[in-house]
Amino acid sequence: MGKEELIQVHKDIAPFIHKTPVLTSQLIDGIAGVHLFFKCENFQKMGAFKMRGATHAIMNLSEVQKSKGVVTHSSGNFAQALALSAKSLGVKAFIVMPSSAPGVKKEAVKGYGGIVIECEPTLEARASTAKAIQEKEGVTFIHPSNDLDVILGQGTACMELLEEVPDLDYVFTPVGGGGLIAGTALAAHYFSETCKVIGGEPFEVDDAYRSLKSGVIESNTSANTIADGLKTQLGNINFPIIQKHVEKITRVTEAEIVAAMKLIWERLKIVSEPSSAVALAAFLKEKETFKDKKIGIIISGGNVDLSHLPF
Amino acid sequence: MGKEELIQVHKDIAPFIHKTPVLTSQLIDGIAGVHLFFKCENFQKMGAFKMRGATHAIMNLSEVQKSKGVVTHSSGNFAQALALSAKSLGVKAFIVMPSSAPGVKKEAVKGYGGIVIECEPTLEARASTAKAIQEKEGVTFIHPSNDLDVILGQGTACMELLEEVPDLDYVFTPVGGGGLIAGTALAAHYFSETCKVIGGEPFEVDDAYRSLKSGVIESNTSANTIADGLKTQLGNINFPIIQKHVEKITRVTEAEIVAAMKLIWERLKIVSEPSSAVALAAFLKEKETFKDKKIGIIISGGNVDLSHLPF
Repeated sequence: MGKEELIQVHKDIAPFIHKTPVLTSQLIDGIAGVHLFFKCENFQKMGAFKMRGATHAIMNLSEVQKSKGVVTHSSGNFAQALALSAKSLGVKAFIVMPSSAPGVKKEAVKGYGGIVIECEPTLEARASTAKAIQEKEGVTFIHPSNDLDVILGQGTACMELLEEVPDLDYVFTPVGGGGLIAGTALAAHYFSETCKVIGGEPFEVDDAYRSLKSGVIESNTSANTIADGLKTQLGNINFPIIQKHVEKITRVTEAEIVAAMKLIWERLKIVSEPSSAVALAAFLKEKETFKDKKIGIIISGGNVDLSHLPF
Repeated sequence: MGKEELIQVHKDIAPFIHKTPVLTSQLIDGIAGVHLFFKCENFQKMGAFKMRGATHAIMNLSEVQKSKGVVTHSSGNFAQALALSAKSLGVKAFIVMPSSAPGVKKEAVKGYGGIVIECEPTLEARASTAKAIQEKEGVTFIHPSNDLDVILGQGTACMELLEEVPDLDYVFTPVGGGGLIAGTALAAHYFSETCKVIGGEPFEVDDAYRSLKSGVIESNTSANTIADGLKTQLGNINFPIIQKHVEKITRVTEAEIVAAMKLIWERLKIVSEPSSAVALAAFLKEKETFKDKKIGIIISGGNVDLSHLPF
């Protein structure tokens, strides 16, 4: 693993993803006292950075594996990302989704050509259902975040950001399953001498914060956050990368998430998920520490239910 | 007036405005059966295309006029646009606003350095109050839409769009006071041999549609539309330009406006005003007519109250 490998990953997936824009706002800079650069993965295909990792994971399969197909379990963006990237690459995709997932999400996966398999809404049922399909169909399981190919794919967002703004001092990302922040940390490590990576995490699901403190992967007992993309936990592949290359994780309240989300919508004029606002909220919480620095914020996605907005 | 003049206008105002991005969506193209190019003036300074016309109108004043200041009456985007562009150019701006205007709008104008003068919430009171300030302070009145310098400034948005996508077949804009569509029509006339301009207008305020039919400027008796930026009427300067250079005006229902707005928010992932959705709604209404054409849509602005969304 190294800089050259990430460059190759980016080259491989480039035809299948968007190079997303980097937005700035003088007004938010004025409020924040720094220079902020927002990497807008809400404009990515299917509306989230997950498209990068899913595409790379499928491309990296053998021809035999590709001919059989892939399976994952997800109720969120990775479900759509794997379905769409599989379709782009001519590969069959089985997506295990909890029966409780909103109909609109199941329809979106089907719209991208994915085969939806419903299961009981427990983590155990998801895993065992995916396992059963894997064995029955001979397909390859692709984990949404604890997979090195997925992690490297997610890292290409920060790589593009650093190409555009090479002298960033910090990059903030949200932390859910750990794929985005691990990929971002690798990209910052390879492509900058100085850029540090900080994670934002809701107090309500602060497993990554606690994992870094204790040195072992911690779980959440509850998951009462608006940032529904961040309810998952770290895995054994991304955790060591996070331990080694992430500066720290800052926890934020639900009110801080909503306030940051409102700022993004009102000032940047973009539709983005609550999870994305967690990264900005983490920065804003300690903004005095970063005076006059150049700060990147990864806006992770824009798939949000407009009829359930928090404002 | 001609192509060279518009090029000069653009050169003059360029340091004070953003060159806004043009967004596309494969998904919306699939729904629409055409190639759509969205010129995103919601990303313009202060959040709307009005910044272009206001900046140009002030720049075109004499030094004596600039030293005295400007006045306008507006409860909408032009109030903020004139205040901000005046501030950028070191000119004093008086903004006459109805006492009924939301506090947040008055504060926004003050935040940009404008001097807010309140008046009774009638068109007559607005005009007479502006007139009184004009006489008392010796300042120059700048109309939000019925002013050739304003119209030329607004035309630079379409000029930029045609530079980026030279072979557009049609451009759709919303129609309110007529400044944007008149400027767009001039730009299309100067910078394309083939590009036609179509206006979108709510049935609820269809004064421009009726004006083109009757040949004289018509008024609205009521203004019950969500597209609050389109409640104004045409003027004697922009109307002849519209008569000469606009292909037609298509009227849309309130439900069509909300549906188009939802499509923009969900698929383009951008925050935009209901008025902007009127342009897309007008296109969608007759989309079969435009099969495989290249269509520009001017997204006019993004200043919207997030606590009062129609979905």
